[in-house]
Formats: sequence, structure tokens, C-alpha cells
Amino acid sequence: MQQTRQPVDLAIEARWIIPVHPSQTILEGHVVIIDQRRIVDILKEPLARERYAPDHWIKRDQHALMPGLVNAHTHAPMSLMRGFADDLPLMEWLNSHIWPAERDHIDEAFIKAGSELAIAEMLRGGTTCFNDMYFFPEIVARTALRFGIRAVVGMIVLEMPTVFASDSSQYIEKGLRLHDELRHEERITTAFAPHAPYTVEDTALMRIQTLADELDVPIHMHVHESAHEIDMSIDRFGIRPLERLARLGLTTPRLIAVHMTQLLNNEIQFAADQGISVVHCPQSNLKLASGMCPVAALLDAGVNVAIGTDGAASNNDLDMIEETRCAALLAKGVAKSPTAMPAHRALESATLAGARALGLESDIGSIEIGKFADLIAINLDTPRTMPIYDAAAQIAYSASSDQVSDVWVAGQHRLENFELTDIDTAAVMAEACRWRDVLASRSAGK
Amino acid sequence: MQQTRQPVDLAIEARWIIPVHPSQTILEGHVVIIDQRRIVDILKEPLARERYAPDHWIKRDQHALMPGLVNAHTHAPMSLMRGFADDLPLMEWLNSHIWPAERDHIDEAFIKAGSELAIAEMLRGGTTCFNDMYFFPEIVARTALRFGIRAVVGMIVLEMPTVFASDSSQYIEKGLRLHDELRHEERITTAFAPHAPYTVEDTALMRIQTLADELDVPIHMHVHESAHEIDMSIDRFGIRPLERLARLGLTTPRLIAVHMTQLLNNEIQFAADQGISVVHCPQSNLKLASGMCPVAALLDAGVNVAIGTDGAASNNDLDMIEETRCAALLAKGVAKSPTAMPAHRALESATLAGARALGLESDIGSIEIGKFADLIAINLDTPRTMPIYDAAAQIAYSASSDQVSDVWVAGQHRLENFELTDIDTAAVMAEACRWRDVLASRSAGK
Repeated sequence: MQQTRQPVDLAIEARWIIPVHPSQTILEGHVVIIDQRRIVDILKEPLARERYAPDHWIKRDQHALMPGLVNAHTHAPMSLMRGFADDLPLMEWLNSHIWPAERDHIDEAFIKAGSELAIAEMLRGGTTCFNDMYFFPEIVARTALRFGIRAVVGMIVLEMPTVFASDSSQYIEKGLRLHDELRHEERITTAFAPHAPYTVEDTALMRIQTLADELDVPIHMHVHESAHEIDMSIDRFGIRPLERLARLGLTTPRLIAVHMTQLLNNEIQFAADQGISVVHCPQSNLKLASGMCPVAALLDAGVNVAIGTDGAASNNDLDMIEETRCAALLAKGVAKSPTAMPAHRALESATLAGARALGLESDIGSIEIGKFADLIAINLDTPRTMPIYDAAAQIAYSASSDQVSDVWVAGQHRLENFELTDIDTAAVMAEACRWRDVLASRSAGK
Repeated sequence: MQQTRQPVDLAIEARWIIPVHPSQTILEGHVVIIDQRRIVDILKEPLARERYAPDHWIKRDQHALMPGLVNAHTHAPMSLMRGFADDLPLMEWLNSHIWPAERDHIDEAFIKAGSELAIAEMLRGGTTCFNDMYFFPEIVARTALRFGIRAVVGMIVLEMPTVFASDSSQYIEKGLRLHDELRHEERITTAFAPHAPYTVEDTALMRIQTLADELDVPIHMHVHESAHEIDMSIDRFGIRPLERLARLGLTTPRLIAVHMTQLLNNEIQFAADQGISVVHCPQSNLKLASGMCPVAALLDAGVNVAIGTDGAASNNDLDMIEETRCAALLAKGVAKSPTAMPAHRALESATLAGARALGLESDIGSIEIGKFADLIAINLDTPRTMPIYDAAAQIAYSASSDQVSDVWVAGQHRLENFELTDIDTAAVMAEACRWRDVLASRSAGK
């Protein structure tokens, strides 16, 4: 009978498998079979040995295997500004520190160094896909391709001139060129990324919606991040930003609305009715005191709520396990209910909901046959995650991202036994230090 | 000149030293000199080599050295119930899960196994001192002595009969015996630990205050944890719990008031005036939806605010770095100010403020000459903490507790290069699993 076993690339056997879909499920003694970058089967270990002849059989017997984490909102290159300016009022932080530093220092080398550091950190912590918004997205895309992570790069749009583009038309033009360049890449897709309602005018927003429909890509945007944003919109347009976006035709299932800390009850229902995805960035919202997103109310209304770290300048890390824990805990505090966002639901937000927001739910976000093998193993055999009653609860409420032992992106082993493969971490960190010296000397010189 | 160098036990050289006191200080290129368990000098590296001849010279050149973290409120043995019952309403959690399990299973073996697991986790994560409240504190004390951590064990008092004692008099009697047994221990002290205003009657509370004054020990108590507690007190006594404690004479600098999520403005000022210490447990407060402690307002009023993890059944870990980050972030969100609880202040709450609350500020909580060498080294040379503009901000906002590489308690190396010394971690985890089977079979049998 031996000769009838099907040859495949890889089998991963784990103590617990959390597929995320179907929800509330933990499989024990199962194996995920991978071939040609995708999951081809999920079955009990004895059956797997009968049916398949994998090139590699990897056993992780103290580990939970789950879908790779989807960081649904970040600014990867800003990792070079991690801790550059903390504990400051928002406008002082932006006007006196972040924006001047960006204006004076951002170039392709900065973007490359920052993306490399961010991707090393994300892969190390179990993130297999990130949704980015920053200048020079082509450099972010190239770095993601080289480092083997999955990414959605933002076709950023602002009215404000920067080193990257001079006006919204030029930003859009550069974005379209990037979309065209990347159209055959399997691991990299694009999204329009108009920065925010207050930085992009109506004409550009309507054009973006039209183009997004044509290209069938999402629209990734900061929306209702702070009370100040709402006030500005009411002053200038007489309406709240979400209402303005609605009138311009942008409130559709394409919209990835990031932050959403300022929501009226009817706006929560509206978001649900329109099929908008919300990306919750709890640590950034707390650190900048932007407000608290009503996650439980959004989930109850049926809104797809994903999780993002935001950039390292306002977080200050890209740790999706920590972010997911913060989301799950804060949801309870804000809703005044300990049953809000339970463990399995939190893990779904960190994976499948992110995939849905990015329009990638048929390819990633859960351990299901046919999807890419974007997977992570988490070693639960440490004092902080012992004993184990429910592996999903241990991940949501106890595990550290340093317990992520293995990461696969499309079946490729990117973190193996806690070590990044194919990334020279020391060189990446040395380059980050060099940029620190550049930016720090700037602060010192003031 | 060589022969004039003073022989000492240990020198620790670190890239950055964060003494916590004086505040806002980061020393570079310095060495901490340790002899007879205490810090005897802090000086520049070349001077240290001139003046001292240590038995051991330990160099940590990518690390920040800081005082050991003080976990100012926990229930160590509850680590065996980590993840036992999550995402439930508070009263269902207590009445249907935690309390029945405690009633049926707690004995000296449970306490020993739970304390061992908790202490292994705490030392691994940089906690050098914990303030405990649980049954059989003598077992917690013995385990802490054996595992080499510093602890304040609670002389727990309830009116309710448990397997440990039958009424408040017997609890107090057992506490006094424990205090007497431990009086010559350098690393273990005691505090009275009346559980909460709603579980201890006036007579017992007044007796505790008298005894605490006689023995010169703190009083460690859950106070104003939830709105329900306030309502119960108003129903029964016509006044809020803090007012009742004030009338009974308990609102003094001895009082370690844990949680304090429900505070009127005048109560914040009252806490400051009376010199009460507050222990903030942000993750537990969020997870149980108890409320949010107004930390920035307390700090502004001059209250000593320490940080605690609470027990692992409601957190679900004993990670003081994560807890401190959550405190620093949540303080900003609650105060609606990004300048609330800045990084250095957060680290002070996690160390010196805890020491002050426990009455141990002359012995621990900062890197100062004369204090015990309770120290931790954190390796910042990883992508998630690079680049480094300010080592204190990196610890408060970016580092993971798994980056703690070394822990010393009274100069003894308890974690060395990420490995616990003198603790058989595998045996501790195996015993925790055995208890999991006992408790899980109970759930399954229902």
C-alpha cells in the first residue's frame, strides 16, 4: 500500500491546531498537509501517515499551530522612529518631531532600512501579512518580496507635497504605476491608501473610489482617529468625516477604516450596513490618547473588526500577539462586560478578519484546504502559558510573541526554531542603528 | 597600586543603567558593585576597574540594567487556574468556577505547585519581589525562600470559613504565627491581607489595624475594585468602602489599596492626604471589566501608585513588563492625555513605588548604594527594541519580558543568560499539568 501515498511538499504536525474557521475549534493530534504553497489537507496523524508522503514532516508537539497573524494597519518604515519621541501631545509629536524628521530624512534608503527592521520584527512575532501605508511603497514591496513576507502595499495619496510626490494626482499616478508593476506578484497586492479625510480632498477621493472599483482593490484610510478630526470636518464641511465619505461614495466593503475611535451609535450600524471593515489599533489609540474604539458594539452589529499595530513610532512595537491581547482586554473594559471579545473571537480578528478587510479571505486568514500555507507555531511549553486548559485562551491572554517558534509564508519556512531564515538580523539592526544616529543627532542639534 | 583594590563579590557592567532614583536618569558605561548581597558602589567602568577586585565581573553590553520589578499584588498559587475559566461575567466566574474549585482542591500541595509555577514565571520575566495574598501563605513563603525570590506574604483574613481557617480570629491567629516564624528571614516579610471591605467585618478590621501598628507591617487589601462593591457598601453601611475604612482608622500609609477603579475626585485627594499606596492592576481590571483606575489623576495628586499583575486566573500571566506597558498606555487613554504616565514614571511604578507600598523602599526598588542587589538585565539587541533613542522608553513601550536575560536577588544570580538557575522548570511544569488534569476533569464531570 505504501506506493499509493501521495507525494507532497510538507506535513506539519502540532499538539493543537486552531483553524480559526470553523470558529471555536481546536484540533488535537492533527496534521496540516501542504503542497505547492497551499494547504491540501487537514487530518488526523495516523491517516496523514497513510495517505501522504511529504518531503518534510515537521512535528511541533508542545505547540499550537494557527494561521499567520495579519497586521491590518502599519507604517513599516517608521520602525526607525521607534521611541524617537514619546509621551508628547499629538500635535507637538507630529509637528515638532515626526513630520520634520520625515521631511528631512526620508528617502529610498530610509524606507529600505525601516522596512527590513519592521519585517524582521513582524516575522519573528508571527505576522505573515501586513497592510502598509507609507511613502515609497515600491521599496516596501520590494523588501517584502525579498524577505518572504506577504504584504498589501498602500498606494498612498495626500494633497500635501512630500519628497515622494507633489500633489494628489502625482501620488495617484505613482500608485497606479506600482499596481501595474506588482500585478503578477502572488504575495504582494495593493490598496489605495488615501491618508485621511482631512488630508485628501473630495475630487481625489472620488477618483480613488472609481479607480479602486476598476482595479478591484481595497481603500485603506485613517478614519475617525481622534475627536479633533471630527471637529475639523464639522468646521469645514458641516458633517462628520464618515458622513462625508458616504456622500462621496466611499463607504463600501472596499473601505478599510482604521482607528474609528469616535463613533455614534448610528455610525456603528451604518458601518455594519455598508460592510465597511474596521481596523482596531488599541495600543496606538491609547498611547496617543486618541480615544477608545467600541469594539464590542461593532462586533455585535456585525462589523468585520481586524487588528493593526499602527507604526512603531506610536506603539512602539509591531507585536500582533500583544496587540490582540490589548484589544481583547480593552474591549471588555470599554463595553463594561467581561464577555466582550472572547479569546477565539480575538484570534479571528487577528487573522481571518484582517484577511477579509484586505480582500484576501479566499487565500489566507484560516487553516482551510485551498488557502496558502501562511502558518505559525507557538510553543506553549513555558511557565507563563502553563497549565493549558484552552490553547486559544493561552495565546490570547498569556503567550508572548517570543514563543512563536516557526513561521511559514506560502509554505516557506521563514522562522525556524525561533531563528529567522534568510534574513541577516545583525545587519538589519546595524543599519537601524546608523539611522538612529542620523535622527538623534538632528534632535541633539536643535 | 593593584593591591589597594577592594575585594567585592560582584561587578555588573551594562550598556545602560536605569537607577530609577534619581529619576529620569540613564547612566552609560557604568558598573554596579555588589558585596554581601548589597549595592556598594555605582561608578564609571574605568574607575570601577581601578578601585574594585570583584570575584565575578559580568558584562552585559547590549543590555539595560534596572531594579528588579516589584509585583505589588498577586495570588501566586492561582497560576494553576490560568485560563481555567475565561470570558465569563465576574459573579459566574467566581461562584461557578473559581470558588468551587478552590473549595474542593486547595491544599498544601496545590499551593506549593502553584507557587512554584508562579515564581518560575516571575523570575523568568524580571520580577524579584512579589506581594502575595492567598491561603496557606506559609507554603508560599517556603517556596519563595527555596526558589530565591523576595516576597511579602499576606496574612490573609476573611470571615468566611475555608479549608485554611474557620473565622477571622483563626485567620489572624495563623497570620501572627506566620509573622513570628518569618521574623528572622531577610528575603520574606509579611503584610496583613484582609481580603476586601465586603468580606471582613469592622471588628476584625480594627484588630488588624492595631496589630499592624504593633508589628509595623502593611495592610494589603482589595479596595474599590468594582462598582458592585461600592453599591454593596452603600446598601449595608450607608457609606462607600473607603469612607468606612477611614472611620475604622485604616486609611494610613500602611494601606496598600489594590485596584481602586471607582474613585471620586475627593477620594483621590483623600488617598493622597492619607498617604495610602494604590496598586494598579490594569489587565485584571480590563479582563473582568471592573473599571479603570484614574492613574494620572492619582499621580498628579501625589499618590504612590504601584503595579500588580493580580493572579493568573484573571490576567492571565504574571508579566510585569506587559503590565507596566498596559498601565502606561491605559493611563493616557483614561486621562485623554498622551503625556500621562511617561516611560520613566511607569518604570518607577513597577519598581520603587512597589517597594514604597510594601515598606521596603530602604532595601529595594532602585539601584542605590546600600540597597539589596535586586537587579535585572534586559537585552535590547533584538529587532523589536531597535533602534534605541531612550532605553527606558524601549523597556516601557517595546521590550518583551522574554528579553530579560539576567535576574539577581540580593546579588544571587537567579536567571542567567535566559536560564533559571536552581529551578527544575520541567518538573514545575509537569506538576502544573497534573493539577490541570485534576481541575479539568472536574469541569468535564459537571
